[in-house]
Amino acid sequence: MPKFKVPEVVVERLSIYLRALKKLSDEHVLSSQELAELVGTTDAQVRKDLAYFGEFGIPGQGYCVGKLKEEITRILALDRSWGLALVGVGKLGAALLAYPGLKRKEFQIKAVFDNDPEKIGKKIEGLTIRAVEEICEVLPRYKIKIGIITTPAEAAQEIANRLVQAGVEGILNFAPVHITVPNKVKLKNVDLSMELEILSYFLSKEIRKER
Amino acid sequence: MPKFKVPEVVVERLSIYLRALKKLSDEHVLSSQELAELVGTTDAQVRKDLAYFGEFGIPGQGYCVGKLKEEITRILALDRSWGLALVGVGKLGAALLAYPGLKRKEFQIKAVFDNDPEKIGKKIEGLTIRAVEEICEVLPRYKIKIGIITTPAEAAQEIANRLVQAGVEGILNFAPVHITVPNKVKLKNVDLSMELEILSYFLSKEIRKER
Repeated sequence: MPKFKVPEVVVERLSIYLRALKKLSDEHVLSSQELAELVGTTDAQVRKDLAYFGEFGIPGQGYCVGKLKEEITRILALDRSWGLALVGVGKLGAALLAYPGLKRKEFQIKAVFDNDPEKIGKKIEGLTIRAVEEICEVLPRYKIKIGIITTPAEAAQEIANRLVQAGVEGILNFAPVHITVPNKVKLKNVDLSMELEILSYFLSKEIRKER
Repeated sequence: MPKFKVPEVVVERLSIYLRALKKLSDEHVLSSQELAELVGTTDAQVRKDLAYFGEFGIPGQGYCVGKLKEEITRILALDRSWGLALVGVGKLGAALLAYPGLKRKEFQIKAVFDNDPEKIGKKIEGLTIRAVEEICEVLPRYKIKIGIITTPAEAAQEIANRLVQAGVEGILNFAPVHITVPNKVKLKNVDLSMELEILSYFLSKEIRKER
C-alpha cells in the first residue's frame, strides 16, 4: 500500500508499463532503462513511479518481468473482475461494446441501458438492452461498480445521478459535457475533442518553431 | 509564447477551463477561485497554469470571461481550422465520424480511409471512403496535419508509418496497441481499457479504505 497519495499520472504510467511487460517473456530480467525505452520515458521516471509502491527490482540487475507484471496487476486491482454497465446504445456505445479492449476478463459489461423504446428489449453483443429506469434495480443485482456513459450530452448528468444512486464507484464519461458526481465517486472523462485540442496546441508550437 | 516547456497536463487543463468558460457570458468577470470550483481544482492551480502563458487577470478582480476565452483559444491554436484524416472505418471509426465533439469548425475530417474493398468507394457522413494506399497522395492535397487511427491493432503501426510519410504532425491512436512515431510527430494514445485500469486502481483503494 502506498504511503502517499499517488498522482493519477503515475497510475496511468503503471498501466503503460504493464502493457509493455505483457509483450515480454516472464523469465526475462530488464533494467529500468530498458523498460523506459519501451514506453518512451526515462529510467529515473520508471524508478520513481515504482518506488511509490515498494521495491520490485533486484539491485544491479533489474526487474523480473513475470514478478513485476504480477505486482502491477495487483496494484491496479486487475487480479479481480469488475462488472460494468453501459448506458446509451448509440453509435459510440455500440462501438465500445464491440471494442476488443473492453472484452477482457477484468472488465465485463454485464448490463446495457437505453431510453429508446425501439432499442429496449433488443440484444447487442449478447446483452439485452434495458430501460434506464431499471438501472437502480439491476446494478446491485450484478454487483456493478463501474458505469460507462455514452448518452448524448443532455442526458449525461441524469444518468450519472442514477448510476451513483445505484451504487457505482467509478464512471467513465464519454458524453461531451461536464458532469458532477459526489467526491466518493471517481469520474474519468474521455473527451475526444479535448485530445484534439491538446494535439492542436503541440502542433501549433512545432509549426511556430519551424518558421 | 511560454518561456518554459509546458507540461501536457497543463494544456489539458487549459482545454477544461475553456470548456467551463464557454458556458458563461463574455462580460462576466470571475475569480480564479470561481473558475477552480467550476472545474474541480484549486485557485492556486488555475493561477499557476495560466501564468505559463502570461498575465490575464485584472488584479483584485479576476478574469474577464470573453478575454480569457479568446486567449486560451489562441494558445491552443483553436483560432484556426485543422484538417483531419481518419483511417479504419469499423464500428469505432464510424462512431467517431458521427461524434458531435468532432464536428467542430476547428477540426474537420476531410478524408477517410479503409483497406476493405467492400467499403472503398462508399460514402460515410458525406465523405467517400478511400483505399489506404491513397493516404500519401490525398493528405498533402487537403493540407491534413492530424491523423486518427481506428484500425485493428495489427494494422496500426503500418498506418502510422503511412500517415507520417504523408506529412501528418499529430496522431490520435485508438488502436489498442503501442505504436512508435518519429520525435517530431506528436502521438496521443486513447486507450479505453487504460482508462478502466485507472478507475480500477482508484476504486480498489476506496474499497480497501472503507473496510
